[in-house]
Amino acid sequence: MALVVTGTVSIDTIYTPHAAPREGVLGGSCTYFAAAASFFTPVRMVAVVGEDFPPGLRSTLAHFRAIDTEGLEARAGAKSFRWGGRYHKNMDHRDSVFTELNVIAERPPVVPGSYRDSRLVFLANTHPGVQMGMLEQFPRPALTVADTMDLWIDGERDALLSLLRRIDGLVLNYDEAEQLSGKANTVAAARSLLALGPRFVVVKKGEHGCILAHRDGLAALPAYPSETVVDPTGAGDSFAGGMMGALAMMAERGEDVRSFENIRRALASGTVIASFTIEDFSLDRLVRLSRAEIDWRAGEFARMLRVG
Amino acid sequence: MALVVTGTVSIDTIYTPHAAPREGVLGGSCTYFAAAASFFTPVRMVAVVGEDFPPGLRSTLAHFRAIDTEGLEARAGAKSFRWGGRYHKNMDHRDSVFTELNVIAERPPVVPGSYRDSRLVFLANTHPGVQMGMLEQFPRPALTVADTMDLWIDGERDALLSLLRRIDGLVLNYDEAEQLSGKANTVAAARSLLALGPRFVVVKKGEHGCILAHRDGLAALPAYPSETVVDPTGAGDSFAGGMMGALAMMAERGEDVRSFENIRRALASGTVIASFTIEDFSLDRLVRLSRAEIDWRAGEFARMLRVG
Repeated sequence: MALVVTGTVSIDTIYTPHAAPREGVLGGSCTYFAAAASFFTPVRMVAVVGEDFPPGLRSTLAHFRAIDTEGLEARAGAKSFRWGGRYHKNMDHRDSVFTELNVIAERPPVVPGSYRDSRLVFLANTHPGVQMGMLEQFPRPALTVADTMDLWIDGERDALLSLLRRIDGLVLNYDEAEQLSGKANTVAAARSLLALGPRFVVVKKGEHGCILAHRDGLAALPAYPSETVVDPTGAGDSFAGGMMGALAMMAERGEDVRSFENIRRALASGTVIASFTIEDFSLDRLVRLSRAEIDWRAGEFARMLRVG
Repeated sequence: MALVVTGTVSIDTIYTPHAAPREGVLGGSCTYFAAAASFFTPVRMVAVVGEDFPPGLRSTLAHFRAIDTEGLEARAGAKSFRWGGRYHKNMDHRDSVFTELNVIAERPPVVPGSYRDSRLVFLANTHPGVQMGMLEQFPRPALTVADTMDLWIDGERDALLSLLRRIDGLVLNYDEAEQLSGKANTVAAARSLLALGPRFVVVKKGEHGCILAHRDGLAALPAYPSETVVDPTGAGDSFAGGMMGALAMMAERGEDVRSFENIRRALASGTVIASFTIEDFSLDRLVRLSRAEIDWRAGEFARMLRVG
């Protein structure tokens, strides 16, 4: 079953307290998601960049041969989305230094006709109305999952609530889960969001792991214990990509990709991939990541959690 | 192998945003530790209260029949330690409303001669010099573990460093681990503390679980995902009590209580007991907790973490 992701491809500048800044590196939710998922399954991306998008970044993306970039539109006359972020000492908080939406603020990219049979659909964070428009272009989905953020929870609540009634799963950060639900306890927040429609909610807590609230159960996983965090950018999107990639593999084997048990297991794949992403800037670690390294760390992570 | 804990028994007043305050309830590090450990093993306590200590609180303690209270001194002419705490909306931060040290500020309690053969020793948080004095009264320990706090890290660093060279394990909160190590990453902080002497360091992260850094490996566990947190007081001491109680059980079976694998597994027992402690005020939940409930939740927790 084919996996598709809609989201952003951006040109990032990253400031951290521990290294020289990196300017003009590859970023974006779609990019990180697709790169992470590509270790598990072929993945189609739907995104738009401007005519200024550098060939060097395009070739970085091409390194991930399981990514289908037919849906990556390079729009004439438009400029690419650019984002700059600055991390603080403990690396778990950041400020946006600049956000130049450019082509992202124009009409959304066109979904290629060849993508319409995609069965697993991930809608990375953007305006929930745009997410809904994207969702409607995949007529026969087996699993639909969306990410969102504080901006839409505050400003586009009705559109977001409409979307939530249409999707199987929601992925969001812990503070956003609390904001959307009005509940201060993360577990209670995640559970209460099920009432808005989704079959499951995954709350991302960064270095503290994640919580899964599903109609059929509740689970928690720690993050992989990382001593070296070079650049946390894209950790959440890589996590989602690893999770959806693992679910796509299960779908190929005929397993139920909406079950509590399978989603819970897929979270471990997301956790492991995200733990590599943060070890270097941009996609640098994923570019040189091997399947053997993933399997080794996944085994270590599973053994670490074996307590009964 | 006998388990002993040294620490405080207090009379607490707890303010939370969700319920009427509870005044004059049973508290203290020694109390929570011993109650939690008592579900796994007999446990000896060394602590001191004043002559004002209410019979009602003593009978609450007596409910836990596996607790040996011979080492609980009721000192004539002295007043009991009293503490008041107020929790904020999300229940993971608190302020001390009052701290009346009273008998805690006098000479430490006397360790009964019958306790000298204790093999597993837990030194709950107090002045590191007092912890050292206590440690010296157990001549043949198989496992020694101490808790500490910011007050001693700042103010009694040399005494704390002396203690760290003498113990097998250190248990502390994540912010204290960062303070003691000077490292902002919790995993790096825990690992670097091994250089100060201990064989292992357990970092408590409250609702986010714990990190184990051991000479032989690194592990992370989430907290049990609790929706209802009534009173987090004593969660950390219950966690340590469950961990040490589980290790005492392993010691009875002839297992190595200082190995990475056994300590890692024991963390799960601490996690499960702590998840019950926070479901009600003071010791109220532990008083009505059954072994069957513990086993059921431990099984659920282990299944939740089975990912490979």
